[in-house]
Amino acid sequence: MKQRFLHIWLVSFIIFLTIPISQVQATENAVVKNVIFLIPDGFSTSYATNYRLYKGKESIMDSMLVGMHQTYSANSPVTDSAAAATAMATGFKTNNGMIGVSSDGKKLKTILEAAKEVGKGTGLVATSTITYATPAAFGAHVLSRKDESEIAVQYLDNEVDVLLGGGKKYFTSLMESGRKKGYEIVTNKTELSNVKKPEKLLGLFASEGMVPELDRHLTSEPSLEDMTKTALKILNQNKKGFFLMVEGSQIDWAGHDNDAAWAMKDIEAFEKAVEIAVDFAQKNKNTLVVIAGDHDNGGMSVGAYDKYDAKLDLLRQVKASGRFMEMELNKKRSNAKEIMKKYAGIDLTKEEVKRIEQADKPVKAINKIISERALIGWTTSQHTGVDIPVYAYGPGAELFRGLHDNTELPKIMAKVMNIRLQ
Amino acid sequence: MKQRFLHIWLVSFIIFLTIPISQVQATENAVVKNVIFLIPDGFSTSYATNYRLYKGKESIMDSMLVGMHQTYSANSPVTDSAAAATAMATGFKTNNGMIGVSSDGKKLKTILEAAKEVGKGTGLVATSTITYATPAAFGAHVLSRKDESEIAVQYLDNEVDVLLGGGKKYFTSLMESGRKKGYEIVTNKTELSNVKKPEKLLGLFASEGMVPELDRHLTSEPSLEDMTKTALKILNQNKKGFFLMVEGSQIDWAGHDNDAAWAMKDIEAFEKAVEIAVDFAQKNKNTLVVIAGDHDNGGMSVGAYDKYDAKLDLLRQVKASGRFMEMELNKKRSNAKEIMKKYAGIDLTKEEVKRIEQADKPVKAINKIISERALIGWTTSQHTGVDIPVYAYGPGAELFRGLHDNTELPKIMAKVMNIRLQ
Repeated sequence: MKQRFLHIWLVSFIIFLTIPISQVQATENAVVKNVIFLIPDGFSTSYATNYRLYKGKESIMDSMLVGMHQTYSANSPVTDSAAAATAMATGFKTNNGMIGVSSDGKKLKTILEAAKEVGKGTGLVATSTITYATPAAFGAHVLSRKDESEIAVQYLDNEVDVLLGGGKKYFTSLMESGRKKGYEIVTNKTELSNVKKPEKLLGLFASEGMVPELDRHLTSEPSLEDMTKTALKILNQNKKGFFLMVEGSQIDWAGHDNDAAWAMKDIEAFEKAVEIAVDFAQKNKNTLVVIAGDHDNGGMSVGAYDKYDAKLDLLRQVKASGRFMEMELNKKRSNAKEIMKKYAGIDLTKEEVKRIEQADKPVKAINKIISERALIGWTTSQHTGVDIPVYAYGPGAELFRGLHDNTELPKIMAKVMNIRLQ
Repeated sequence: MKQRFLHIWLVSFIIFLTIPISQVQATENAVVKNVIFLIPDGFSTSYATNYRLYKGKESIMDSMLVGMHQTYSANSPVTDSAAAATAMATGFKTNNGMIGVSSDGKKLKTILEAAKEVGKGTGLVATSTITYATPAAFGAHVLSRKDESEIAVQYLDNEVDVLLGGGKKYFTSLMESGRKKGYEIVTNKTELSNVKKPEKLLGLFASEGMVPELDRHLTSEPSLEDMTKTALKILNQNKKGFFLMVEGSQIDWAGHDNDAAWAMKDIEAFEKAVEIAVDFAQKNKNTLVVIAGDHDNGGMSVGAYDKYDAKLDLLRQVKASGRFMEMELNKKRSNAKEIMKKYAGIDLTKEEVKRIEQADKPVKAINKIISERALIGWTTSQHTGVDIPVYAYGPGAELFRGLHDNTELPKIMAKVMNIRLQ
C-alpha cells in the first residue's frame, strides 16, 4: 500500500511540474478590478422558468446559476426594494422603505462608496427613475425612499460617475451644478449613442420612470442594453476599475401589475444587458458579474388554475403593456374586443369582454385574462419573500455558491475587490 | 517580473510538499459506494423559505444547496410525479403518467436497477403507498401509474431489498411469495423497530397511503425518520454499497390540498430523514446524499394577498390536517368554530364560520382560511413547472452545482458510482 501511495504522489508531482507558472501566478494574485452587479428587480425562480418557456431556450442567466439568497428585511419576512437594495449595497438589514441607512437611521457605507474611496469609477443604471429605491440604496442615504429629490442631490454630491435612467423631474434644479461638476447631460437615445468618453455622464430619458420595453418603440428612450454599453465604455476609462449597478427595474412593476407579457419582455431587455456585461467580462479578465433579483413579485407561478400546462408562447403575441391597452380603451370600453385582438392577439369571449367593461381597473382585468390564457398564476400584487437565485460569472463567482443572505452579496464583492465596506 | 513568478512558484511548490499523501490518494480514488436520494415530493423554493420561517431557523437542506433542476416532462411544461420520477430514475423524459418507460412505452433501466446489477443493495421508502408514482419509477415499468398492483409484483420480481411505506392492499396476494423470496414483513412502528438485520424487508404500514405527519400520533405508523434509519441499517450490510430512495411523499399531497400546515409538518418529518442520511454519510465517507423535489405543487407563495408579511408561526398552532378537521365537523357543521379553535388555534370570524358551513368541500375552506391567516398564497391545486432546488452532501456533491435538467441527476449518480445507467 505504501508503495502505491508513493506512486500516486509521484504522478501528482509530475502533473504539478507541468502547471504553467503563469497559472500559479494568476491564482495567487487574483483580485477583481471591476464588479458589474445586475439586479432584475422582482425576478425570482418562477420568472426564470417562465422566461425560458417564453424564449424557447435557456437564458444566459441559466448558464450562470451559482446559488440563492434570502431577502427578508429587518422588519418583515417580505422586503420592499429599499430594504433589499440597502442589504445588497451595504451588507446590513434595514426596515422596509429606508435607503442606505440602518433601521435606527444611521448612515451605512455602500459598496459603490467603498469603490469610490479607492478611486474606482462608479455607475448606476435603471429603467425606473434613477432615484428609485434600488439604485438609491447604492448612492444615497435617506430615511424614506420617497425622498427622490434629496437622493438626486446626494448622487451629484457623491459624484457618481455615470447615472442613467428616468427621473428628469428630480434633477430640474440640479442641471447647472451638474454641468459644473463635469457631467455631460443627455436626454434621449440618439444623444446617448453620440456620447464620446466624458468622465461623467448624467442621462435622464423620462420625466418619471422610463416606459415598459413593450412600449419603448413609441418613444426616444434608449434600451437597458444601450445604457449598459455606454456606462461600461465610460467607466472602463478608469485604470483603477469600477463598480456598476444595472437594474432591470420594471420586471418588478410588471409583477405589481400582474402583467406577464410586460415581465417577460423586460426580462428579455435585461438579458441583453447581461450579455453586454458578460461579454465585457470575457474581454476584461478581472471583471466579476453578479446577477441577483432583490425579491419576488406577485407570487407568479409556472402553470396554474388546476391545469398541467403553461402556454408562454401566447405571450409572444402580446405587443403592448396592459397599461397601454387600458389607455387605448374608449370611454365606454366598447372597443375592448378590438384592442385585445390588436395588441394581445386574443379573441375575447363575451364573458371576457364584460369583465373588461365592468372592471374597477380595466388594466387588472386585461392582465388577468392574458395570464389565464397563458396559464400563469399570481397570489398578490405585492412582493413575496421566497429565496431568489444568484448568478455569477468571472473571478470570485464561486464564492456566491450555496444559500446566502442578501447582506452577504456586497461583502463578497468588497472582499474580492479588496476594498473596505465597513 | 520573472523573478517574482519564480518566487510564487517556489512558495507554491513548498505548499505542495506539505500536502499529506493520504489526501492525494483520496482524491484520486474517490468513488461513491452508496447513494441516498431523498425526494421531497412537491417541494420547491417557496416551501424551503416558508419552512425556514416556520422552523425559525435554517434547515439542514439550506446548508446543502448546490443548484437547481428543470422539471418539465416529455409532453408538458408541468410534470406529474410519474414522468418526473422516471426522469430522475432513468435519465429520460417521458409523458405524464408513465412509469419507468419512454413516451413510446419502451422499458428504461433505472439507477436502482443499475446499482442492483453490480450487486449493490437497493431500497425504496415512502409515506404514500410504496407503489405510488415516485418510488415506482425506480423499481418498476408500467404504462400507467395507476397500475399499482402490477408495480407491487414487479418490486418483488426485481427483489428490491427494502420496501417501506403504505399500500398493503396491493400486496395482499403477494405476502406468501414475498416470504419465500426472503422478505421479513412488518406492519407497524413496533415491528419495524424490532427488526434485526434481515437481508430483505417489506414494511407496509397502511392499507393505502400513510397518514399526514400531523395526524400520525393517532396511529401505529412509523415516521419517515424511523423507516430511513431501518433501511440504512439493513442496506449497510451489503459490502458493495447500496442505492436508497427516500420520498417525503405527502408534502405533495398537502400542496394539492393547499394545506400549508400539513406541508410544513411533513417537511419537518422529511428533514429528520435528511438528518439521518447526512449523519450516515458523515460516518460512511463514500456516501453521496442528494435531495431534490420532483416539481412544485400549488404555486405556494411566501406572503400574499397584497400584504408585506408572512405569518408562518401561526401554522405551528395547527395540530391536525385540514382533512382531519373536516372529518371532525358534525353533519350541520355547526361545530366549525370549536373544531378550528381546537385544532388550528384560530378564532373564526362569523364570515369564516359561514364559509366553512356553506363550502362545497369544507376542507378547502378550512385550508384557505388557515393560509389567509398565515399569508400564504396558492395559484392552483395541481403542480407547477418552476425550477426546483437541488441539495447535495458528500463526494460528488459539487457535480450537482448550477442548473441541471432532471434527467441529469441519475446520470451523475451513475457516473460517481461508476455503474452503467444506459
